[in-house]
Amino acid sequence: MTAPPKIRALRHVGLRTTALEESVAFYSGPWGLELVERSDDAAYLRAAGPEHHVLQLHAADHNALDHIAFALPTPEEVDAAAAWAAAEGAQIIEPPGPITRPGGGYGFRFTDPENRVLEISAYVNAVAERPQDVPVPRKVAHCVLNTTDIDALTAWYTRVLGLRVSDWSEHQMVFLRAVGDHHVIAFNQAEWAAPNHVAYEVANLDAWLRSIGRLKVAGHETAWGPGRHGPGDNAFAYYVDPAGLVPEMTAEVMQIDDDTWMPRVWPRVPELSDLFRTAGPPSPHIRSHMGGTPDPGWA
Amino acid sequence: MTAPPKIRALRHVGLRTTALEESVAFYSGPWGLELVERSDDAAYLRAAGPEHHVLQLHAADHNALDHIAFALPTPEEVDAAAAWAAAEGAQIIEPPGPITRPGGGYGFRFTDPENRVLEISAYVNAVAERPQDVPVPRKVAHCVLNTTDIDALTAWYTRVLGLRVSDWSEHQMVFLRAVGDHHVIAFNQAEWAAPNHVAYEVANLDAWLRSIGRLKVAGHETAWGPGRHGPGDNAFAYYVDPAGLVPEMTAEVMQIDDDTWMPRVWPRVPELSDLFRTAGPPSPHIRSHMGGTPDPGWA
Amino acid sequence: MTAPPKIRALRHVGLRTTALEESVAFYSGPWGLELVERSDDAAYLRAAGPEHHVLQLHAADHNALDHIAFALPTPEEVDAAAAWAAAEGAQIIEPPGPITRPGGGYGFRFTDPENRVLEISAYVNAVAERPQDVPVPRKVAHCVLNTTDIDALTAWYTRVLGLRVSDWSEHQMVFLRAVGDHHVIAFNQAEWAAPNHVAYEVANLDAWLRSIGRLKVAGHETAWGPGRHGPGDNAFAYYVDPAGLVPEMTAEVMQIDDDTWMPRVWPRVPELSDLFRTAGPPSPHIRSHMGGTPDPGWA
Amino acid sequence: MTAPPKIRALRHVGLRTTALEESVAFYSGPWGLELVERSDDAAYLRAAGPEHHVLQLHAADHNALDHIAFALPTPEEVDAAAAWAAAEGAQIIEPPGPITRPGGGYGFRFTDPENRVLEISAYVNAVAERPQDVPVPRKVAHCVLNTTDIDALTAWYTRVLGLRVSDWSEHQMVFLRAVGDHHVIAFNQAEWAAPNHVAYEVANLDAWLRSIGRLKVAGHETAWGPGRHGPGDNAFAYYVDPAGLVPEMTAEVMQIDDDTWMPRVWPRVPELSDLFRTAGPPSPHIRSHMGGTPDPGWA
Amino acid sequence: MTAPPKIRALRHVGLRTTALEESVAFYSGPWGLELVERSDDAAYLRAAGPEHHVLQLHAADHNALDHIAFALPTPEEVDAAAAWAAAEGAQIIEPPGPITRPGGGYGFRFTDPENRVLEISAYVNAVAERPQDVPVPRKVAHCVLNTTDIDALTAWYTRVLGLRVSDWSEHQMVFLRAVGDHHVIAFNQAEWAAPNHVAYEVANLDAWLRSIGRLKVAGHETAWGPGRHGPGDNAFAYYVDPAGLVPEMTAEVMQIDDDTWMPRVWPRVPELSDLFRTAGPPSPHIRSHMGGTPDPGWA
Amino acid sequence: MTAPPKIRALRHVGLRTTALEESVAFYSGPWGLELVERSDDAAYLRAAGPEHHVLQLHAADHNALDHIAFALPTPEEVDAAAAWAAAEGAQIIEPPGPITRPGGGYGFRFTDPENRVLEISAYVNAVAERPQDVPVPRKVAHCVLNTTDIDALTAWYTRVLGLRVSDWSEHQMVFLRAVGDHHVIAFNQAEWAAPNHVAYEVANLDAWLRSIGRLKVAGHETAWGPGRHGPGDNAFAYYVDPAGLVPEMTAEVMQIDDDTWMPRVWPRVPELSDLFRTAGPPSPHIRSHMGGTPDPGWA
Repeated sequence: MTAPPKIRALRHVGLRTTALEESVAFYSGPWGLELVERSDDAAYLRAAGPEHHVLQLHAADHNALDHIAFALPTPEEVDAAAAWAAAEGAQIIEPPGPITRPGGGYGFRFTDPENRVLEISAYVNAVAERPQDVPVPRKVAHCVLNTTDIDALTAWYTRVLGLRVSDWSEHQMVFLRAVGDHHVIAFNQAEWAAPNHVAYEVANLDAWLRSIGRLKVAGHETAWGPGRHGPGDNAFAYYVDPAGLVPEMTAEVMQIDDDTWMPRVWPRVPELSDLFRTAGPPSPHIRSHMGGTPDPGWA
Repeated sequence: MTAPPKIRALRHVGLRTTALEESVAFYSGPWGLELVERSDDAAYLRAAGPEHHVLQLHAADHNALDHIAFALPTPEEVDAAAAWAAAEGAQIIEPPGPITRPGGGYGFRFTDPENRVLEISAYVNAVAERPQDVPVPRKVAHCVLNTTDIDALTAWYTRVLGLRVSDWSEHQMVFLRAVGDHHVIAFNQAEWAAPNHVAYEVANLDAWLRSIGRLKVAGHETAWGPGRHGPGDNAFAYYVDPAGLVPEMTAEVMQIDDDTWMPRVWPRVPELSDLFRTAGPPSPHIRSHMGGTPDPGWA
Repeated sequence: MTAPPKIRALRHVGLRTTALEESVAFYSGPWGLELVERSDDAAYLRAAGPEHHVLQLHAADHNALDHIAFALPTPEEVDAAAAWAAAEGAQIIEPPGPITRPGGGYGFRFTDPENRVLEISAYVNAVAERPQDVPVPRKVAHCVLNTTDIDALTAWYTRVLGLRVSDWSEHQMVFLRAVGDHHVIAFNQAEWAAPNHVAYEVANLDAWLRSIGRLKVAGHETAWGPGRHGPGDNAFAYYVDPAGLVPEMTAEVMQIDDDTWMPRVWPRVPELSDLFRTAGPPSPHIRSHMGGTPDPGWA
Repeated sequence: MTAPPKIRALRHVGLRTTALEESVAFYSGPWGLELVERSDDAAYLRAAGPEHHVLQLHAADHNALDHIAFALPTPEEVDAAAAWAAAEGAQIIEPPGPITRPGGGYGFRFTDPENRVLEISAYVNAVAERPQDVPVPRKVAHCVLNTTDIDALTAWYTRVLGLRVSDWSEHQMVFLRAVGDHHVIAFNQAEWAAPNHVAYEVANLDAWLRSIGRLKVAGHETAWGPGRHGPGDNAFAYYVDPAGLVPEMTAEVMQIDDDTWMPRVWPRVPELSDLFRTAGPPSPHIRSHMGGTPDPGWA
Repeated sequence: MTAPPKIRALRHVGLRTTALEESVAFYSGPWGLELVERSDDAAYLRAAGPEHHVLQLHAADHNALDHIAFALPTPEEVDAAAAWAAAEGAQIIEPPGPITRPGGGYGFRFTDPENRVLEISAYVNAVAERPQDVPVPRKVAHCVLNTTDIDALTAWYTRVLGLRVSDWSEHQMVFLRAVGDHHVIAFNQAEWAAPNHVAYEVANLDAWLRSIGRLKVAGHETAWGPGRHGPGDNAFAYYVDPAGLVPEMTAEVMQIDDDTWMPRVWPRVPELSDLFRTAGPPSPHIRSHMGGTPDPGWA
Repeated sequence: MTAPPKIRALRHVGLRTTALEESVAFYSGPWGLELVERSDDAAYLRAAGPEHHVLQLHAADHNALDHIAFALPTPEEVDAAAAWAAAEGAQIIEPPGPITRPGGGYGFRFTDPENRVLEISAYVNAVAERPQDVPVPRKVAHCVLNTTDIDALTAWYTRVLGLRVSDWSEHQMVFLRAVGDHHVIAFNQAEWAAPNHVAYEVANLDAWLRSIGRLKVAGHETAWGPGRHGPGDNAFAYYVDPAGLVPEMTAEVMQIDDDTWMPRVWPRVPELSDLFRTAGPPSPHIRSHMGGTPDPGWA
């Protein structure tokens, strides 16, 4: 084994939420996901794309990240990734093997230096894709994470998971990619570790505006946006979910060609934070929800 | 002469305004037009497209429509159009001949049944096109007019100018096209004749959102919108200019193929008035500005 | 009125059938249409496209053509077409007015020189289009009619309906178009007037082969085909329906541009009758069903 | 008959040449045409496109235009065009009927006001198209004619043949189109009537440069060009053929959409005469050959 | 040397045949290949693409696989591949060097664990491509091989040749790719090692149906198909050649992007074995020919 | 470090020139570059693309190559490339670190076996791109170098810089690529080491011909060309600059896909040296300038 894994995609995100019922209603209602599996204390929701689910919600007494799941194509590559991670010193909390949770597949779990749970899997249950020409999310696009040491985490995710840096927003944020999308993970330098927000992608600006309208008709106004980010070039509209966690509706994320891409450092000025200039700066309200509360991670 | 003229495009609109200086600053500033000619009591502004100007502003003591100018390709077709209009009983107020106003060309003027001044011209001064990939208007897209007799005006504009009906919004509005765009003129049944609004087209949804952002940074909020109309499928954002007249920023107007288009009658329900569902109904404020004041027309 | 109507499309075909129940099951089952309205002695079936229905089946004691319906965009054009037809000597059997049959609209009916009933309509009830990426018919593509005088009928349909000749197959068949498709009506010189077959279009060769497979799984083999016609370049597969009438599954019909098309006379040789060379000549069995029985037409 | 014919294309040009043998060798050799029929005193050459021939060469004791042939789709339209021409006062020198010359078809011949012979035909012999991806001419693109009265001829060709003005080069040249190409005929104001040059079109700039190279290898240098015209936007390279007549190799002729085209008057300045600026002004040598000798026309 | 070779393509397949003369007539006739070299006991046939030949036929007293040839771009990569294969324990039967057989190039030969002969070469003789828009094979698309140990062979071909698994059909078949095409080699678990079939690709469904028609006119009916496979999404039509070997005419093979492809395990059900549903299950007749007779391989 | 760097692009070329002032006027004038920085003895010129400069000119008493600069995306990759080069025995003349010369960035310099100075850098100063639809150079396309040992240099550049061979022109020239373009460096076997020429790319054949025209109007005729090379398929036009160095204006360079490209050896025959056949062989004059004078390289 001479190289880190070549992660193909972000599969899903698991969140711990203090408002499970209300959140299921929100995400399976105006947000546009669909409930595919449900137990007393957990819910699994899919998007229009080929993943069994893109969001897991787990009832908890405080909001937190449960785990993040990445995709590899074969069990062989999963085994190799686990061996690589172990060799790099990562803590393996579930060794490679069949996954018995909803969605199935073959995978393993390990923790990052701030104790977040990561999963890498292959051969998960496929589901029939939904029509793509309606304004609902197709997939989870990326997950932004608050960290107390952006440099250490960037080094760890590039070395252990093989993600590559796409861009920096000064020394405040860094954007890491797998294949295609400008980023699947971004880190934000902060006072404590916590999930910042999870972004869901719709097909284009038209679908994105129709999604914003559907949320508005249902009584949900944007907490920040609509706007368009400089790094990643993606349209954004941030909301606060019933538990106080932050989802983002996004579209037209920049596609990166590994062979020609040159990373840049973006200054944090208004005209690059919002290329549309429609959003203005984020309010203290949304900043507070993005900051979250200290998340101890795996226990 | 056996047929009405085949109007190719809307060239420009002339407005009478009670706030000339402020309006020149508004339209040549955040609205994105460019001043090309100026006198004490008039201003001519161009867009990025090939027309010498798309908007004329004339100082006046009340807001009104000065005239609407349409395009034909040759002086021969202008002469034929003038003969046709005269034969159909239209009042010719300037016979065909060289135009000595800014922009030049060869044309004639006549009045419609509600005394609006119309101009048809050819061979106007060409100007170099500006870059098309920046978020500024490329042209005037359409002009909506309040009328006291929508059926009579529709019959007159189809018979005398050769415009064709593209769609009806119940019996309240009717959309008339020349070539390509879903409409260049629309009529709104109202208590008195007056200009309702003038729409300017940008290249796509991205340019449209950047234009809304540029106006916002300059202190101009939308008076209605952003949203997307059912008939014509065009994105909309309405503003009130310094004199109280209404301009619309629009994009992605439906393109019509004469050979296959089938007009429809659209019910006036919220989900068809705004396909995005982001706008909500128009406020009394914008309705009042769209209604305007009685416009006596040519004198 | 100085010109024939500009027919935009073939809307639907009405057939009289000796096996109404079995035919409804056939066309709404493996053929891929959908039943939208039903009475004791009639059924209306739609395709994936925007027409309320593309096939009417009427219970009768012999197979025959009930009528063919064409599309115009506005009631004004329908009135003009009726006046033109009357002036050309056609027998008007229903004057222009609201249509009270299923599908509604505004239209009139008249007969052709062999007593077929033709309908021209506008403003019919629109229906929501079905997804287009599944292998079911999108529309009725064309109707081929046996006639005892191909030249007289060709002259009549070009003069009264404004259809244009696209091609001849020697002096045996002639193909007439409206807009786009190579033909909406074709005539076949025969011993008596009768419907020859009705063709339904699917999106492409893949959808066409999947349709043939779906019919095969349901027990219906092709009576002629698969193959690809020379004139019109369309893929073909002919069947015999439960009453003995002939439907055709077709795809990739040649699209004609009026401005550049030059009609040709095609020799009736095997390599031009079937460009694929997979079909061989039609059998006496299918020839007999295509010939049908003498159809007296309107009474 | 209420309108002029709608000419679809330029079919071929016939020239009278003082050097028949050498010219056949030139045009069927490095020029890239192919000899399809030959008699003692005439030769017929085809291009890669669907026309039986695009050039006729007739042995004569002085260089001249023999005739120009235009295309209509059906014999009915040919008959109507002949009736229209006669009604407009044109001299019909061959009434409509089967053409017995090579290439066949159904057509008629008449003369223009300067005694040029024009032919309009339909149903000519089709030929299999040659591969289009090789650098040889696909068709005859246009024919430029010297005239002593550019205004009278322009009026006559628009009224009698239905050609439309695309552009003027000051009051020196005028460009007339049929369908698509910017021009099929152009007139040049001169001291006497004569053919100016005949242009042949290749697929694109690459094929055009390869054609120039093939001619160079065979010993033929350009007499003017390579360059790119302003009006029509077509690349040009002019040669002198063995008899002293002028052929042009051209590519990328501007395509005109009748519904949106606005004719212009181009000033005759170097940067618009040659958009490439590679050609410089025409030499007296090529000007002399373009001027030709007085051509009395039909006798 | 730290990695297996990156095979670029399947070049050709060599077969041993009991009916050389008849097979040459079949493959160079209705099958659409072209004979390029011939000796008493061997024949070399090319397709329309750039390979010198895609099929070798060698006279033998029983049907068998002679060898399979793969492409690398440079002699350096050939040398590296040979070193890699040797290091992995493969038996090298011809060391790297100039190839003196027809087609030339630089290559080496080795055997797989079931004693099949494999060749890897570079710098072979190029040939001019034939026109691509005619319905004849462009290349050999893939070769399916019966094996007694599908897992062992899959492991060996991925490790030694660097091929990657694209999909499994349960544990019965496995599909291995080089670049682009879904598979160049597939293994079928069987009672003995033997060639199953060789597939030849035409440009699209239209060319594929025209090829089936050409074979039919020549008296060759399909032995299985037409149909469309689930794994690989390729259209198929199987035949039995004069010696009893099985060729497949295929089209529209799925193209794989290595960065995003996720292999799947396909259940062996009728609707996935034939997406068209036109083929039905393979008959005992074709199954028997696909099974072949035990092939001892290299000796 | 287990692999050579993956060079992304050629950034710029530095030349030593005996005619600095005249060369600045030439390259910033009719050649179409733009001066961005100037000192007494050096000038920096940019093209329309994103590089700070593509050409450096340094005053010197003989013409020579100053250095060639390549691009990597990150400082980390620059460090790795330096370590790799050192491990391969290259002489590092500037260790990795911030670049204080105009254009900035992070890079290092080393020498090749013939003492040429090479630079590899990341994070250079970005500049706003100029409009791309005007006929001026977008970038430096490639640099051709005369060498006394083509095999040794090819081995060194592939091993140390990771460039790959795209094609050979017999054993006289070899073309090496980074990403996309057929070559960024080519070597020409010669009597002494010297720069042969530097090529600048414009967008397409139209822009290329307009560039040739602009140079002609300014008094600069081509020294060889216009023509189109076989290897690389790029259009060419060679000039001699005021100091006697050779720049090439090029367009439509072949784009290479690493996964499918097969290098070839091209015979040096006229029809492959110039696909257009418009250029003829290079004259002794241009050959002499391409040969240059012995360049001792770094000192």
